Amino acid sequence: MNYPQPLEDLINEFMKYPGIGRKTAERYALYTVNKFDIAAAHDFASTIIAAKEKIIQCPICGHLTETNPCSICADTNRNQTIILIVESPKDVFTIEKSGKYHGLYHVLNGNLSPLNGIGPEELNLKTLWSRVQNEIIKEVIIATSATQEGEATAMYIKRVLKDIDLVVSRIAYGVPVGANLEYTDDLTLNLAIENRHKF
Amino acid sequence: MNYPQPLEDLINEFMKYPGIGRKTAERYALYTVNKFDIAAAHDFASTIIAAKEKIIQCPICGHLTETNPCSICADTNRNQTIILIVESPKDVFTIEKSGKYHGLYHVLNGNLSPLNGIGPEELNLKTLWSRVQNEIIKEVIIATSATQEGEATAMYIKRVLKDIDLVVSRIAYGVPVGANLEYTDDLTLNLAIENRHKF
Repeated sequence: MNYPQPLEDLINEFMKYPGIGRKTAERYALYTVNKFDIAAAHDFASTIIAAKEKIIQCPICGHLTETNPCSICADTNRNQTIILIVESPKDVFTIEKSGKYHGLYHVLNGNLSPLNGIGPEELNLKTLWSRVQNEIIKEVIIATSATQEGEATAMYIKRVLKDIDLVVSRIAYGVPVGANLEYTDDLTLNLAIENRHKF
Repeated sequence: MNYPQPLEDLINEFMKYPGIGRKTAERYALYTVNKFDIAAAHDFASTIIAAKEKIIQCPICGHLTETNPCSICADTNRNQTIILIVESPKDVFTIEKSGKYHGLYHVLNGNLSPLNGIGPEELNLKTLWSRVQNEIIKEVIIATSATQEGEATAMYIKRVLKDIDLVVSRIAYGVPVGANLEYTDDLTLNLAIENRHKF
């Protein structure tokens, strides 16, 4: 006996999300049918459509926004000479919450990953090249992750930008503040030792 | 800086699901906006509504179904004298997949949990009482979990049914077939020893 088709369809929709397997999708689908009333189901449905229809990628930096350009690109009080390059819009929200950075952003929407068919064309890079040439950019800070793919992406960007007169920097990776060395993973520890600085 | 409101709304919708916290909800909401096209968002939305509108609880057993009554209650080839009582529709699908049980079901939609305000009124019990009185039921098998709440629910049902002429049984809990004693949790092990039978 299988699930009734409308339930099966909903399970398949949930399974499209990363990290949601069959069992979890079943749980969410059953929860939707059991615990939501019709009004709540309609709310969820219209929220999905509203999010998709109202949120666009900023044509300048690639960040998710309701306005064109996004509020960060439009904010003339921010430092217009620095661009911080991140993998995803999530990173922009995270850094903005920390509140210390006041420059601009550029969202790549991923990392280079030749094995998964993600080359430079698949990333939001074209607008980056035109930004660094047409604007008054003095520094580009690369904040892709300290993974193999994040490093490859950082190296690629550094290579392309090498003939342009600007500073290319990379954020520091190392032991987090307050963390115990004992509980720090090997890769982070290696990076922290490699990136040591004079004290 | 917060997420744009439509994205924030979608995050809140995902957070309604059990086990989805803020971070996971953010990931799903961003995935929806980044990776779904408009058509896919509409598909997801209409699938939610279709599941909610087309799937009903069988008025006899409480199982989720597209038909009234459900295909199990309507199947005259099944053994009409046994009712297996489960917590959720998921359990019915699981037992049906195993393929050995050919009686009827009754879905409680939960367990007694006074601390969470779930008393007998909140469970699908009224129809159970009428089923065992009006039908030709000879046995009721209680398959609620071996948790405190599942046991309390089983005890409650047993007590209510004590004056009715039928066998009330409980499924066996113990060490799973093929499992190593070393990796079996204490509660299961205790149950397995307590429920030992002559060999």
